[in-house]
Amino acid sequence: MTSYLLPGYVQCNLVVLPRTDAFDFLLYCQRNPKACPVIKVTDPGDPEPRFSAPGADVRRDLGRYAVYRDGALVGETTDILDLWTRESVAFLIGSSMSFDHLLEQAGIPRSQIWMLDTCVATRPAGKFHGSLVVTMRLMTRAQAAEAARITAGLPLLHGAPVHIGDPAIIGAHVLQPRFGPPISEIPPHLVPVFWACGVTPQAAAVTSKIPLMISHVSGHAFLTDLKTGQLGLAWE
Amino acid sequence: MTSYLLPGYVQCNLVVLPRTDAFDFLLYCQRNPKACPVIKVTDPGDPEPRFSAPGADVRRDLGRYAVYRDGALVGETTDILDLWTRESVAFLIGSSMSFDHLLEQAGIPRSQIWMLDTCVATRPAGKFHGSLVVTMRLMTRAQAAEAARITAGLPLLHGAPVHIGDPAIIGAHVLQPRFGPPISEIPPHLVPVFWACGVTPQAAAVTSKIPLMISHVSGHAFLTDLKTGQLGLAWE
Repeated sequence: MTSYLLPGYVQCNLVVLPRTDAFDFLLYCQRNPKACPVIKVTDPGDPEPRFSAPGADVRRDLGRYAVYRDGALVGETTDILDLWTRESVAFLIGSSMSFDHLLEQAGIPRSQIWMLDTCVATRPAGKFHGSLVVTMRLMTRAQAAEAARITAGLPLLHGAPVHIGDPAIIGAHVLQPRFGPPISEIPPHLVPVFWACGVTPQAAAVTSKIPLMISHVSGHAFLTDLKTGQLGLAWE
Repeated sequence: MTSYLLPGYVQCNLVVLPRTDAFDFLLYCQRNPKACPVIKVTDPGDPEPRFSAPGADVRRDLGRYAVYRDGALVGETTDILDLWTRESVAFLIGSSMSFDHLLEQAGIPRSQIWMLDTCVATRPAGKFHGSLVVTMRLMTRAQAAEAARITAGLPLLHGAPVHIGDPAIIGAHVLQPRFGPPISEIPPHLVPVFWACGVTPQAAAVTSKIPLMISHVSGHAFLTDLKTGQLGLAWE
């Protein structure tokens, strides 16, 4: 699990697509910047993200990869050397796991993180469409305000929360999380805080029946050489 | 001239490309966000930027269009109805003209604006490469600091300056501006402040010999319905 292996460094969700679908997907990211903040896109066929992780190889440096074909998860692998072609394009998308240590430094204790589907539609682009996936953290109301303030300045790590409060308002079912233990009741002194999640593209790959998309498996993100504090408002 | 027609509203540089070059260009924008902050990209063939200017038509709502073929400016027109196809994609790129009224509100008197070529290389993407184009404004040092602070919060309008001080350091020749009167000497009490400019794609079209690219003509930008104050860190 990469989740908190290197606090202070930016970790990324990975999406690999053939060049033919790369424009639609980059446009999907541009239209949904809170869910899909693009940190780096490799040149077609080049597995090295030179600016964010020189020397790295997106084909084998992650712990586990998920392979989606025509909207179905068809397998998990430990490298994608045999699936990578000269037409493959890798997208590195900021992960909210990267900001948890900043919240911790601000006195917000680290909590369980849930990943949840919602009924919030993303803006479609070409063949990509689907619903927003969010992460949920529980904290006090004062901590929620502080967490919103901190993350608002980090648009490349999903920015400010998309929702604070009742999960039902965004159609999130806390009894059926995508990741994390089901919970039947939120403690009354805590409020759920929701951030757009970089797993949204995986949901879009399924909903949109994308012919071939490879992603990281949750908990096996791509670790960059970028420090969270170096990430500005736009990746320059 | 649209330059200051609607203070408070976002105006945009326009780039129109065939879909075959759209991925390379969107990636060029992603890699050069200070020069090319993307506010909106239309669906291929759709001339209406729905979110930023519903009802508008990018094919005829601008005053003048420049047509570049294979790296040469081949003409200017007042509409592009005959050049637009089902494969055309329009990119709206934030213009620094949109923030001048904010500087004015902060007590920085409006000055002449120059547009200058530099020797600063942009990050290439696919077939797009070239040098950064900048705008230059003259102000006192205290005003320069305040202008940097204000624009740092507006990444979709080019963000903070790329340089403050001697134009020669970035290879800008104030005697040969792209736009604005040549100047032989900068008044000693003023300092030149440089922002990345949305005309950079036009320079790239020339340098990269792009088969067909259409842009606005300087001073004839696309006026959106977006207010400058509504522009967040990322266009959502």
